[in-house]
Parts: sequence; C-alpha cells; structure tokens
Amino acid sequence: MDFAPSPRAADLTERVRAFLVEEVEPVEADYHRELAARRLDPSLGSPWEPLPVLEELKAKARARGLWNLFLPREHAGEYAARFGTDGGEGLSNVDYAPIAELTGRSAIAPVVLNCNAPDTGNMEVLLRYGTDAQRAEWLEPLLEGRIRSAFTMTEPGVASSDATTMEATAVVDGDEVVINGRKWWSTGVGHPDCRILVFMGLTDPDADRHHRHSMVLVPRDTPGVRVERMLSTMGFHDEPFGHGEVSFTDVRVPLANIVGGPGEAFSIAQGRLGPGRVHHCMRLIGLAERALELACRRSLERTAFGKPLANLGGNRERIAEARIAIDSTRLLVLHAAWKLDRGGPLEALSEVAQIKVAAPRMAQEVIDMAIQLHGGGGLSDDHPLAGAWTTARSLRLADGPDEVHRGVVARLELGKHGASR
Amino acid sequence: MDFAPSPRAADLTERVRAFLVEEVEPVEADYHRELAARRLDPSLGSPWEPLPVLEELKAKARARGLWNLFLPREHAGEYAARFGTDGGEGLSNVDYAPIAELTGRSAIAPVVLNCNAPDTGNMEVLLRYGTDAQRAEWLEPLLEGRIRSAFTMTEPGVASSDATTMEATAVVDGDEVVINGRKWWSTGVGHPDCRILVFMGLTDPDADRHHRHSMVLVPRDTPGVRVERMLSTMGFHDEPFGHGEVSFTDVRVPLANIVGGPGEAFSIAQGRLGPGRVHHCMRLIGLAERALELACRRSLERTAFGKPLANLGGNRERIAEARIAIDSTRLLVLHAAWKLDRGGPLEALSEVAQIKVAAPRMAQEVIDMAIQLHGGGGLSDDHPLAGAWTTARSLRLADGPDEVHRGVVARLELGKHGASR
Amino acid sequence: MDFAPSPRAADLTERVRAFLVEEVEPVEADYHRELAARRLDPSLGSPWEPLPVLEELKAKARARGLWNLFLPREHAGEYAARFGTDGGEGLSNVDYAPIAELTGRSAIAPVVLNCNAPDTGNMEVLLRYGTDAQRAEWLEPLLEGRIRSAFTMTEPGVASSDATTMEATAVVDGDEVVINGRKWWSTGVGHPDCRILVFMGLTDPDADRHHRHSMVLVPRDTPGVRVERMLSTMGFHDEPFGHGEVSFTDVRVPLANIVGGPGEAFSIAQGRLGPGRVHHCMRLIGLAERALELACRRSLERTAFGKPLANLGGNRERIAEARIAIDSTRLLVLHAAWKLDRGGPLEALSEVAQIKVAAPRMAQEVIDMAIQLHGGGGLSDDHPLAGAWTTARSLRLADGPDEVHRGVVARLELGKHGASR
Amino acid sequence: MDFAPSPRAADLTERVRAFLVEEVEPVEADYHRELAARRLDPSLGSPWEPLPVLEELKAKARARGLWNLFLPREHAGEYAARFGTDGGEGLSNVDYAPIAELTGRSAIAPVVLNCNAPDTGNMEVLLRYGTDAQRAEWLEPLLEGRIRSAFTMTEPGVASSDATTMEATAVVDGDEVVINGRKWWSTGVGHPDCRILVFMGLTDPDADRHHRHSMVLVPRDTPGVRVERMLSTMGFHDEPFGHGEVSFTDVRVPLANIVGGPGEAFSIAQGRLGPGRVHHCMRLIGLAERALELACRRSLERTAFGKPLANLGGNRERIAEARIAIDSTRLLVLHAAWKLDRGGPLEALSEVAQIKVAAPRMAQEVIDMAIQLHGGGGLSDDHPLAGAWTTARSLRLADGPDEVHRGVVARLELGKHGASR
Repeated sequence: MDFAPSPRAADLTERVRAFLVEEVEPVEADYHRELAARRLDPSLGSPWEPLPVLEELKAKARARGLWNLFLPREHAGEYAARFGTDGGEGLSNVDYAPIAELTGRSAIAPVVLNCNAPDTGNMEVLLRYGTDAQRAEWLEPLLEGRIRSAFTMTEPGVASSDATTMEATAVVDGDEVVINGRKWWSTGVGHPDCRILVFMGLTDPDADRHHRHSMVLVPRDTPGVRVERMLSTMGFHDEPFGHGEVSFTDVRVPLANIVGGPGEAFSIAQGRLGPGRVHHCMRLIGLAERALELACRRSLERTAFGKPLANLGGNRERIAEARIAIDSTRLLVLHAAWKLDRGGPLEALSEVAQIKVAAPRMAQEVIDMAIQLHGGGGLSDDHPLAGAWTTARSLRLADGPDEVHRGVVARLELGKHGASR
Repeated sequence: MDFAPSPRAADLTERVRAFLVEEVEPVEADYHRELAARRLDPSLGSPWEPLPVLEELKAKARARGLWNLFLPREHAGEYAARFGTDGGEGLSNVDYAPIAELTGRSAIAPVVLNCNAPDTGNMEVLLRYGTDAQRAEWLEPLLEGRIRSAFTMTEPGVASSDATTMEATAVVDGDEVVINGRKWWSTGVGHPDCRILVFMGLTDPDADRHHRHSMVLVPRDTPGVRVERMLSTMGFHDEPFGHGEVSFTDVRVPLANIVGGPGEAFSIAQGRLGPGRVHHCMRLIGLAERALELACRRSLERTAFGKPLANLGGNRERIAEARIAIDSTRLLVLHAAWKLDRGGPLEALSEVAQIKVAAPRMAQEVIDMAIQLHGGGGLSDDHPLAGAWTTARSLRLADGPDEVHRGVVARLELGKHGASR
Repeated sequence: MDFAPSPRAADLTERVRAFLVEEVEPVEADYHRELAARRLDPSLGSPWEPLPVLEELKAKARARGLWNLFLPREHAGEYAARFGTDGGEGLSNVDYAPIAELTGRSAIAPVVLNCNAPDTGNMEVLLRYGTDAQRAEWLEPLLEGRIRSAFTMTEPGVASSDATTMEATAVVDGDEVVINGRKWWSTGVGHPDCRILVFMGLTDPDADRHHRHSMVLVPRDTPGVRVERMLSTMGFHDEPFGHGEVSFTDVRVPLANIVGGPGEAFSIAQGRLGPGRVHHCMRLIGLAERALELACRRSLERTAFGKPLANLGGNRERIAEARIAIDSTRLLVLHAAWKLDRGGPLEALSEVAQIKVAAPRMAQEVIDMAIQLHGGGGLSDDHPLAGAWTTARSLRLADGPDEVHRGVVARLELGKHGASR
Repeated sequence: MDFAPSPRAADLTERVRAFLVEEVEPVEADYHRELAARRLDPSLGSPWEPLPVLEELKAKARARGLWNLFLPREHAGEYAARFGTDGGEGLSNVDYAPIAELTGRSAIAPVVLNCNAPDTGNMEVLLRYGTDAQRAEWLEPLLEGRIRSAFTMTEPGVASSDATTMEATAVVDGDEVVINGRKWWSTGVGHPDCRILVFMGLTDPDADRHHRHSMVLVPRDTPGVRVERMLSTMGFHDEPFGHGEVSFTDVRVPLANIVGGPGEAFSIAQGRLGPGRVHHCMRLIGLAERALELACRRSLERTAFGKPLANLGGNRERIAEARIAIDSTRLLVLHAAWKLDRGGPLEALSEVAQIKVAAPRMAQEVIDMAIQLHGGGGLSDDHPLAGAWTTARSLRLADGPDEVHRGVVARLELGKHGASR
C-alpha cells in the first residue's frame, strides 16, 4: 500500500498548483466583485457575458500544457497529444484526482483548464462513443475550448432520482430523430458559446427498461429548441454558465446525431458517471480545503472578547473535525478512483455511490463552519463561501440524490449476505 | 400548567390564519415569480421598487384589525388603540407568539401586518425610550406603515459577536451629535420608504464598558449618510428591503436625536432583544412548519421507483424527526416568551439565548430536508425553500452568533454551581 | 398558556425533592458501592437480595405521604386515599410529571416511592380492568409495596417492534387458561418479592388482528413457570430486580385470571402505554438533569492544562447544548402529558410517540457528554453515569424501538395531508 | 498511489482470516456463554480464571506462525525469528494494520495471537529501550505468552488528559527506586499471569516539563503493590484481564528497573503511542465491520410488519452510512500507519490524533446501529454488540480523550497558518 502519488501526478499537480497561485488566485476576487456588481447593476455589462479574463487565463493554461488534463487514460488516444494534455496521454483517475481537487478550490479554475462539467462528461461521451464525424464537428472545438456544451437529462415533471421515468421523446422518423419534451438543470446552457446539447429521451417504450432511451446531439440553434428560463440555485444563477430549463418542440436532427445507436443512452450514461463523480467529489475536497484555510486564517486574525476566535469556545474542535472529515473523505474518493482504474465502473459501484454521499455532505458542513467563523460577511459575496456552500449543497441532488446512492450502497452491502435486491 | 392559548390569542391567531389563507397565500407565488423575473431582467421593473400588491395587502390587514399586533402589552399604551391593534391594547409575548409563527410562514406576511424586523424593534425602542417629539416624528408614521426604518449596529471591521468592539462614533458637539463610521447588515435600508436609521456608536470611551455608546436617530437623507452597497445573503438580496453597508461621514444631527440619553445604547438594546428574538424564533417555527407541509405533500405526490417518496427509504423517519424538532422547539420558544412576560429579560436570559440557538438550527435542518425531498426544484425559486433556508441560516449569525448564545447559556448554567463567570 | 405547575403539583414536587435530598441522596453512594462489591464478591451477600435500606426508605416515603403518587386521577378511586397518595386522590399526568422527573434522578427513588415500572403499569391495569377479586389479591399488596410484579410480553424469537407477531399462547380450556411460550425482558422477575406475572399471549388466531391476544395474571409460583436466566443490559443485571427470560410450559391458571376478558390484551396494553411512556420520559429528563449537574460540577472542580475543564475547548458549548436539549425535551413531555389529560391516548398518539423517540436519545447524549467530562471514572461505577446511560439506551428499544415510534409520528403527519397510511 | 496490500501483508492477512474462521469463531460463542454464566454464578468457576481454551488457541496460533505479528519492522530484530513471527522479521505499520483489523473482530483474538494491548506496547518499550537484562527477564516470557503485563499511568485524582499532572512518585534512593502513588485503569492487572507492571511516576520535579517522570519495571509481587479493586467499564469487568486500581506504598525496586534512564518516561511513552493507536484503531475497524455484518444478517433474517427489517424505514440508509463510515475511517487509519512508517511519530502527529478521534466514534455509532437492529437482544450478552460498544466507547477516553486529540489536530492545523500554539 502506497499513498504517494505517481511522479507524473506529482509533477502535474505541482504545476497546476503553481498556475493557480500565480495566475488564477490574483484575479479571482476582482472577477467575483465585477460579476456581483453586474448582477446588481446590469448597466455595467451583462453578467451573462463572460468576462475577458477567462479567455486570457485559458490561453495561459494551455500555454503551460495544463489543458484537458481530465482526458482519461483509456480513451484519450491521439486527442491528448493534439489538444494539449501535457505528456501526450491521458491520466488515470487516481492521477487526475489531486488535480481535480486543486481546480475545485476556485469557481473558475475548472473552466480555465478546460476541465469543467458538463463539458468534460460530454467530451468523454464523444471520445468513447462518437463517430468520426461527431468528433470532428463537436469534440474538437470542445477540446479547443472554443465552444461549450450542455447535458439535458433531468426533467421538471418526474423524479430525477429514477431516470427510467424520463418523459421526453426522441423518436426515429426515417433518417431523422424528432425530439419533444422539457428538460431542466441544463448546466452551461446560458453561456453564449454553448453550441451543442446532449439530449436524452425515450425512443422505444417497448424495449427493456435500460434500452428505451437514446442520446442525441442537438445543436443549440436547431429550430424548436428554446431556453425557457434560467434557474437559480439557492439564489445564485452561476452566470455566465447558468442552469436552464429547455423546451424541445418537434425538434428534428439527422439520425446520425444519435450517439452510440438508438436505445443506448443508459449504458453510455453509466460509463460517464463513474469518473464524473470522482471529479465532482475531488473538486469538493478542494473546496472544503479552501474553506478550512479561510476558517483557520479568520480564526487567527479576528478578535472577540480579547482573544483570537481560534481560542474561543469550540472553534478549535470544529477546525479539527473539519480536518478529519476532509482527510478521510479525500482518501475515500482516491480509493474509489483507484478502484475505477483497476476494475472499471461495475467494480467500483459501491465506492462511487459512497463518495457521492460523503463528499458533498462533508463539504457542506465544513463550509458552513467556515461561514459561521466569518460572521455575517461569510454569508455575503465578500468571501467565496456562500457560493461554495451552494455548490456543495446542490451536489447532494445533482447526479442523483443522496438517498438513491445510499440505496445502491445498501443493496450491494446486503448482497454480500445473500440479498437479491 | 396549561398549554391552551388565551381566548384573545386564540381569536387573533385564527383571524391571522384566515387572512393569510384568504389574502396572502393566493398572491404569494405570483409575487415571488414577478420578483425573480425582475432580478433576471430589470427592464421589467426594478426589484427594488416594491410591488403594488404589498400596499394592497397592508390596507386589507389594517382593515381587518390585524395591524401592529406586535405592540407589547407593557408599552403599547394609547398607540395600540390609535394604530390598529385589535382590542385596543398590546399583547403579551406568549399571546403574540403564535401570531408571529403564522407570519413566519410567508416571506411577505410580516411586512403586510406591519410586524416585520427591524421596524418592530425600532418602534419598540421609540415607544419605550423615545421623547414625545421623537415619537410624533418617527413612531407614528412607522405605526402607519408609511415609512420604514433600519437599525445600524454591526460593523464590517470588528467581531459583531462582541458588541463592545464597535468602532463607529457618535460624538456630542454642543447641541449636535457628530457621527462617523461604517455599518453593515442594515436590513431594510434598500427600501425606497426607508427614512430613518437607528444608529449605535461610541460616545464616551472613558465610561464603563456598557455606558460608552449612544443610540441616535439619523434621518436617511442627512448629508454624509451613504449606502455604499447592498449585500447579498447566500445569493439573495431580499429586495425590496435589502441589507446595506452604510457609511457615515461627519454626519450631524441634533442632540435631541439621541434616544434615552448619551451612553444608554446598551441598556436600550438589551430591552429590545428579548422580545425581538422571540419574534424571530417564532417566525422560524412557522417557516419550518411550512417547509414540513411542503415536504409531506411532495412526498405523497411525487413518485419514484413505483412508490410515493413517502414510502421510500428513510423519508418517513425524517418527516417524523422534523415534527419532533418543530414541536419541541416551539415549546421552548413559547416557554421563553412566558418567562419574559413573567420576569422580564433578565429572568429569561438563558431561555432567550437557548431559543436563539435552537430555532434557527432546527429550521435550517427541517428546510434542508424539505429541499432534498423536492429534488433540484427545491434549490430554485420555484418553491419558497431556498429563501427560507437562507433566512434560517442567516439567523444563526444575526442578533449574535450561536456560539455567543451558547456561551451565555453555559455561563448561567455553571453559575448555578458557583462559577462566577 | 401557563407554564406554572398547579399548587398541588408544586407542593408535592417540593416535598418529593426534600425527601430525595434528605433521605435518598445521602445513602445512594453507599447503596451502589455495596451492590458493586457484592457483584464482584458474592461472599459479601447476593446482589439479588435487596439491601435493607430500601425497605427503610419505603417506610419513610410512605410516612411522608409520598407513596403511590403515580395513581392516575381518572382511575385512582378509593385507592389513592387508602394507599397513601397524599391528598387522597390521584394526579393528572401533567401534575405527576415533575414528580416522575425527580424520581428519575435516582436509580432507587422510583421503587422507594412505589412508583417504579413495571409495577405502576401493572397496578394501573388492575385498577382499570381488574375484577374486585383480582384487585383484592394483587393490586392491594402491590399498592402496599409488599409484593412486586413483572410484565411478560416481548419474545426472543420474534420482532418485538411488531406486537402482532407474538407467538406465546393463552388457550382457554374450560374454566382454565393454558399458557405456553417464552418471554424475555421481564423486568423485576429477579426480585425475591416478585409474585405475579402479567402475561400476554395468543388466544384466538382467527379473531381480527387486535383481538387475538389475552392478558393473564400468572402467579410466579405456578407450576410450569420457569425463569430460565437473567439477562444483562450492556453489562448490567440491574439487581435485585433484573430482566428475566421466562418459559411457560403447560401453565394452567383459572379462567378468572384473564384481565378484561379474552382477546382484550391489545386494548388494555394501549391504555397502559400512554401514561407509562410519559413516566419513563420524565424520569429520563431527571436522569439527564442529574448528569448535567454532575458534568457542571466536574467541569468546575477538575483542572487540566492549568484551567478548569469548563474553560477548555468546546466544553461550555456542550453544556449549553445539554441545557437546551433537556429543556426542550421536558417541555415536549409535559405537553404530551397535558394532551393525554385533555384528550386521552388517541388524541395524544403522535405526542407520546414523539417523546418516546426524543427523551431517551436526549438523555443518552447528555449522559455520554457527562461521562466524557468525567474521564475514565465516568465509565466506572464510581459515578451513576454508566448505569444512567444504559437506562437511556435501553429505552430506545424498550416499549418499542425508536423506528416504530417515528413511523407512528410520520403516519399521523402524512395523514394530515390525506395519506391513509 | 496504490491501495493494494503488499504480498506479505496479503498472505498473512489471509492466513489470520483463515485461522479466525477455522479456530476462533467456532469457539467464541461458547467462550462468552461460559464467562457470562460464571459472572452470574461463580460456583461454576471464577470468571477471573482464564478458560483453558485460550491457551489451546494460543498454541494453535503459534503453530501456524501467527504469533507476535505486531513486532515492528524497525525494532523486531532477532526476536521476530526467535518468537514466531512468520517470515522472521517484523511488519511495517501499514502491513500489520489489516491483521490488527481482523483481530479486532473478536474479543479474544488479540490475546490468542499474542497481539493484545497493553502487552504489545510494553513489549515494544522493552524492545526499544530495555537493557539486555530487562529483555531477558521480561520481554522473552512476554513474547512466549507465558506471562502478562500491565501499564500503570493514569491516576484517579488528576486529569488523565494532561499527563504532566501525574502525582505518583518514583524517587531514586541510592541504587533503588522508591515508588508511591495510586494508579487506575491498569488493564490486565486482574489476570493471574500478570507479573510485571510498567509504572510511570515523578522523579525530578525540577526538571523541564517533559523530563520529570521515569518509567519503572515493577514486579507484580513486590511488597507494597496492592490491587485495591477491579473497575467496571459500563458494567463490564473484562474478566479475566480486568482494569485495576493499584496502590504503590513505599515500593522499592532496583535502580536497574528504570527503563531508558530517569526522566525518560515521556519520550518513551511518545514512541509507544503512535503504533499503539494505529493498532487500537484498526481493531475498532474490525469491530465495526463485524457489527455491520451482524446488522446486515439480522436485517435480512428478522421480519416485522411482513417485511425483513432491511426493507423497513431508514434501515438501508443506516447500513449504507455505516459502510461509508467504516471505509473512510479505515483509509484514514491506513494512511496514518503509512505516514508513521514513512516519517515516524512526529511526522504523523496530526494523523494519529485524527484516527484516535475518528475510529472510536465511528465504531461506537456503527455498533449502536447494529444493537438497535437486534432489538432488546442486542443489549444483552447474546450478541457481542454490548461488549463491542463498550470497547469503542472506552477508547474515546483511554489513551487520551477525544478533546485532547482534537486539540492536537487543531494546533497543527492552525500552525500551518502561523499560529505558534
């Protein structure tokens, strides 16, 4: 057993850390201040128009070879070399994990390194299941960071925890697919560069439960596609990416836009979820680490009743508990990543479900503690904590609610003792 | 021991309930939808401009005699009869408590009944400590609901948990008071009708620790008063009231604007806090009740895996725990109100500190559970839960952080066993 | 709403407090030391032989009129006057509650005041449903404190959470009842004065679900009754009362020993449970109060790192949380008692289930905190904390596990919104 | 990063597992039944007399080469080969950890493999700091499993959390050491084979804070050594080992019995604690694993309300949370072991303190859940859960209370941000 990272992982992690310290952290506060100002006063510019600094940072990241690092070892192929991943090949999950942790410290770092959800998941789908034509048209500009994408799966009218209840349709009609329905929580759809939606819908209601749905590439500007509104998450709109509610009315795209063939949506989605959840969870580790750092600094700098906050009441115990929670959850995620690398998603089913429960909750609690130590200011936009909390909280629902993941863990646990379900 | 409400409390509570059901609930969803739309697209109108329905509802509430019900039995005097409190006299804390609970169910009900913070606290200060002139000029229009007020105490640069660290100054200079400093979390200061700020600042640094500060009435339009910005709370701005950061630069007001005399700010603030905290906590009980109702309905209506959510996993246990938490916390608050009525704030010091810890936390947890049952939509503005959560969370800091209140409870507890502090 | 106790309750509570302080507390440490010594070295005397001080204390309690105070207002009848309840009549639940709290502070006080489970419940059953003959033979000596009783319901082979699964039988055979089966957790059966077992068993498997079982009075010395073993609870045997596993093999008693008629066991048991649960829960409040007192004293007396424990880390916050938890739970129990008094068990179904969840858990947590403050000694018999913890923990299972009570609360809550179950 | 065990660890772990399944598990229930019977009825034999099966199992373990596996890689030297450790050399902490986990599943396995506390710690002290004479006299028979030892450090009169408050004395008087004082929680002192006490006491009050105390070997039968009583832990006496209170009255031993020289007790104790805590924590992981297994089986076998418990309410969610808690805590402990191996105790100070907080709490909670699923029987000696809970609970105090360890973690965390303490 060896907890030391591989030399390549250690090197890349260190370089990402340096990039964040040198380039991202110095501009972050201004970035958020500008965005907050635009929210209150759009005459300063729309918050939905990406601030120029993002493109500048992307260029710097790419120049340093810190670009598309998410590309998975097994599927990166030529793309790693062509689109900037340092070393010319993809990383294993366990090697990428500490990098994902670092990017999670910052709300903008993932996009700056072209490693943000849902684009990473969409790119991985195209890598693994896309045709050459699909890859040329959509994957390459995504890998370039020139366009953005959205994933439209969850629907407002049914329980997203049970994906088989999905009601939107993707009906094959000759050499076209006709799409109807309503999706929401389509992250990234508010960005002006969003060009492609990855859509999931019902194709064959008579097929078996896991072969009824198809995954279809729907260009954002196809007639009948309409972003009905942008949703807020605990008060935040996450501009300029945003989460949209999107209606599809008699939308027609070529049959060739189906990914992996009709009825394959569930198996494609399954493959997408393991690594994606590891990424989410590692980013949450990073977010929690940052919150703990802020809490520690605040507790040493701010004084009340004649003492630094660190020396008042249970504050030290809370800091210690945060350290314990972060470290044990990080190890849980790293171990899940390692199991994914060793045995694939089926082998790591319980582990991935476990981290999906543990990491957002841990982050939510650590950030809540950090907010409390910051007093009223902790609730405001003066610190990145309110936004961080919302990220953690929303991940207790996004990609499946905690309850469903606990159900998976329990089913596998009871299965060891002979339970069939 | 008798847990039944007094006939007058029962009657008023019932009438408030009817008013909420008949007049407020039917318009609430539209109110919030309109506000959310304005936030995203101010060309529809500024979210800081109060929607007309508020004034309509205020008129209806007053017409029903459900107006200024917060007026305290001991201090209401003639004002209850003159400004609409049904029955012509004020209510005890324990009689007002169930009314406060009901208003807490709705984000707009408190203001519609002219029972919202911080105006209630400011009115109570004027009632108890104001001169006739101060009352005529500020109390009466507040009781009419024609103007609004703000309370400016907390400061960005020092620990708000330790009020003695306050740095803003209110220096007596002849027959004037000169005010300098910076305050934040001044709730209500964003409202166009806000006309008066109740300011706390240092007057005599050589006086004993609790007689150094004065409370001063500062008209909103006095030169040198500047709202620097509106703060967000977990992403929300709480338009059209808002929470402001306000700077005071060589602001001069007549000496007669000091409330209760120079150096009296702390004793005035103390008297203000007991009932105010009961109000806050009872409103949180109402908020949690509403969240539990929404959770129950959702769990019966929404189906996943072939069953209503209520019959999946631990959902019923969570609903039961919410019921237990709400009921025990409500009783704790009612008991604190009763102790305040019987013995005054000093007698109820521990009880009031206890509820200030227990009620926001309980509400935060119940609402979080309700959000979870609502899935992604629970995080959005489609349900009142995200806003409700933020209200509960912010009250773990507003009016003193949990940690300070736990400190008070522990000090009094250890004092029973001989500890001097 | 009035939280003040009635004059009679206040007077009796004060007198019980004085009795405990003057008579019980001074002998308690010796009592437990002697018992602990006998456990390790039975040559000093069997721990199952009641120490003489118990009878002395019982005589003193009775002489002070503090005897059988549990007797319920509605059913006490002549017995209150005849068997020592001060004032000659029974108490309401809400009036008895603070007395039960006080007795819960001490492991021996309930029996000293003849107010201990399961004898109180058994006496109440005889009061309400017993025939004159049954009362003369069993109730009167129980009220005298001359004999003890046990309640035999739970069975080792089936889930005690679902009472309808009970397998022991009570078959009517002419003018006799024939009893077979195995029961456990029969509290009190180890006491040498235990003379009567209240047995529940299946009489008519074809009757409807709640009319199949009968409650039968089985004298302890009836042939075929055998105490197979005494069970330990987290290492404790609770001598000299104990919890027994009892087998019944072709035990025959007269038909007249059935209480309330064949098939009536469930309705009798239901009536027994409401007040009994209030008693248990109020005793737990008392137990938690005592643990908090011990924790406070310890935290002031014991020094580490140059400070009293009270001034180290989160100890004060934990003390504050304990105070909040005790006070809110006490109010919840008092309110349930009041509802029982006002509307009877059916009206208070949710309230009684709520307290059964809340009180043992709260007590368990407060006592655990007190143990922690006492260091290693807190785990030993040097303090009453280890035993207190075990009492609290076992009440999360006894009288129905938490999970079942949460199920009741949730069912009633969802029922408000139209759910049939 | 590689979570796979080394081949040697995998092999030994597998062999230990086989030994436990084949030899220990089949006799465990009988062992505990016999012990429980003796506790209630000592005429069956004293529970303090070790049951013969223990020696039989020890012989079998040694014959399989599964003996003294705790011997540390760095210090085992010739002893590993001479006293049975398979492979002839010691194991690293990370290699021994999974073996410790397995032994923790059983209350008797550690002693059967000669790997139980406090003997392992005492042997390690002798290995590292003992003279040749001390090793020949005490270490060799301990490695043979022929004698047992105790560690006497904690004192009843002072806070054990602050070891510098220790009051017992070890005064050098010519070529003797004179020992006075009172110790408690001396584990193992009740065993008839206990021959040697490792004593810590004050030698030089004028030395610096960490060089005042000495560690002295005191033969159990030295005049003036007296076991005053055996302590119970939550009702359990842990026969035949037990935890004793021991008085030392003018006890004289040769100066040569000091380990490592006068004043060296603290530095010796420090070195002893890192690996010892890893062992404790890994055993707790094993204990929790076993409790979860029992919980799963019970939840599938026991039926209530027509369903297996696994399908009722929140039981599955609780099982899932237990799995998450065990796995994340195991990884935390393994990582601490790895850090100990890589950098020694000073490097792993925070990690070891973290696991000491996390593992006992996690085990306590998982076992509590398992008890609840077992109903009343879970509290009794019919299942190993009550004893397991007590083990976990007592480890929240033994080797330093949670609060002290949290203090260490927080100090190191704040130190990263410049705090000096």
